[in-house]
Amino acid sequence: MQALQNIKIVLAEPSHPGNIGAVARSMKTMGLTNLVLINPKKFPHPEATKRAASADSVLEAATVLSDINQAVSDCTLVLGTSVRDREVAWPTADPKQTADKVIAHLADVSSAACTTDKKVAILFGRESSGLTNQEMDLCQMQIRIPANDDYSSLNLASAVQIIAYELRMQALSTFEQPTDPEQKVTPAQQRQAFANKGQTDGHLEHLQATLAQLDFIKHDQPTMLMRKLTRLYNKAQLTIEEIQILRGILTAIQTQLPGSELPNTTKN
Amino acid sequence: MQALQNIKIVLAEPSHPGNIGAVARSMKTMGLTNLVLINPKKFPHPEATKRAASADSVLEAATVLSDINQAVSDCTLVLGTSVRDREVAWPTADPKQTADKVIAHLADVSSAACTTDKKVAILFGRESSGLTNQEMDLCQMQIRIPANDDYSSLNLASAVQIIAYELRMQALSTFEQPTDPEQKVTPAQQRQAFANKGQTDGHLEHLQATLAQLDFIKHDQPTMLMRKLTRLYNKAQLTIEEIQILRGILTAIQTQLPGSELPNTTKN
Repeated sequence: MQALQNIKIVLAEPSHPGNIGAVARSMKTMGLTNLVLINPKKFPHPEATKRAASADSVLEAATVLSDINQAVSDCTLVLGTSVRDREVAWPTADPKQTADKVIAHLADVSSAACTTDKKVAILFGRESSGLTNQEMDLCQMQIRIPANDDYSSLNLASAVQIIAYELRMQALSTFEQPTDPEQKVTPAQQRQAFANKGQTDGHLEHLQATLAQLDFIKHDQPTMLMRKLTRLYNKAQLTIEEIQILRGILTAIQTQLPGSELPNTTKN
Repeated sequence: MQALQNIKIVLAEPSHPGNIGAVARSMKTMGLTNLVLINPKKFPHPEATKRAASADSVLEAATVLSDINQAVSDCTLVLGTSVRDREVAWPTADPKQTADKVIAHLADVSSAACTTDKKVAILFGRESSGLTNQEMDLCQMQIRIPANDDYSSLNLASAVQIIAYELRMQALSTFEQPTDPEQKVTPAQQRQAFANKGQTDGHLEHLQATLAQLDFIKHDQPTMLMRKLTRLYNKAQLTIEEIQILRGILTAIQTQLPGSELPNTTKN
């Protein structure tokens, strides 16, 4: 199923090569093939290949990156798995709710002629300590697997297996219907498309600059407030049109503040 | 949850001790503890203990038998996992349907005073060749995990993980009691609570007034733009704290615009 190919499984700094191999096997049994490794301690490694069994094609095609931002930069939906309670509460979904959301997100596209635009990343943290707060900041939603309170230590490949299983179940029930290949994407639908990472980052930088100009925050100093605003707008999963509106407002504020150096003509 | 203790995971002649350990871990993360091993090749074994991580209590409590009939003799429902097509077609269920059936079977008992009568066994076959026809004959139903046709080779612990996960999800939804209404909410949790309609309306009115002051929209005239912004913030499902932040920014804008009549002291 094409939709499952548009989902990246991203492992943040996995320590054990055996786990990487087991993750590849978990993925392939459910039809997922897109694996991204951020600074793996040991990769490639014979133990990874051994545990992958006949899913070594997933390992061979895996992308290795040093910066997790690169992994999500082309993604329209980013989710992070977590068992910890966070200071900043993210919207949370269990694996089934996650699969519903992810497949619905991809189905908009896959049911039309265009099947290539949307990409989803699902982040899995370190074996010992999970995802950092900075990594969770990249996510629109937190996935929580409802594990045993007394022993919630899922093996990395087991966590991937559960998510991949739910994704497959949901994809099977969604895409088994025949679709109309003639369906066209209109320009209006295009504006309603979800913004990508570069576009959402552009908005947040514009917001930060405006807040600094308002003396609401200190200039160029990342604050808890910016984290909270990032999370707020991530939750909304902005469309391209919405970003245009929000940035239009920001430009209007900037140009009308006393002492503004921006020319009035940029106002819209 | 008591119901999950009444489910036995039965492994028929597992070859690799590492798999036995990984199965124990998969089980315990989902609250299952009852493991039965039929003629394991190597058990106990350091590799099993290592892969069990902190689920070694499941290994220590495991029952080792030489005859699978003994494992199911006290069970009121027996299910077998299989990927093979059989000459004799069994009634088949996917993991979710399996969990519905198993928990419904146990719920009859667990909801009454008596919680001890019914036991369920779920059989998992050899790594290489699965369950024999004789072993399937013990089963009322066959469980099929809907794996990738091109690569359906689930690791034994992964298969157990998926079934155990579905059992836990179904048990939680069946047996979970409503939470204690006396439970205390901290001030931090209070701020993270979702805003009510009055609070979100207050924010949108404040936003509209600010945009009018910016000449971005006409005053007091509901526009398509306001509808789009309403939808945008509805999507984000704002918390009380987030509304406080957004209204703080709006007040800062209002007080700093030229000709503002608002006193500067309302800025925050």
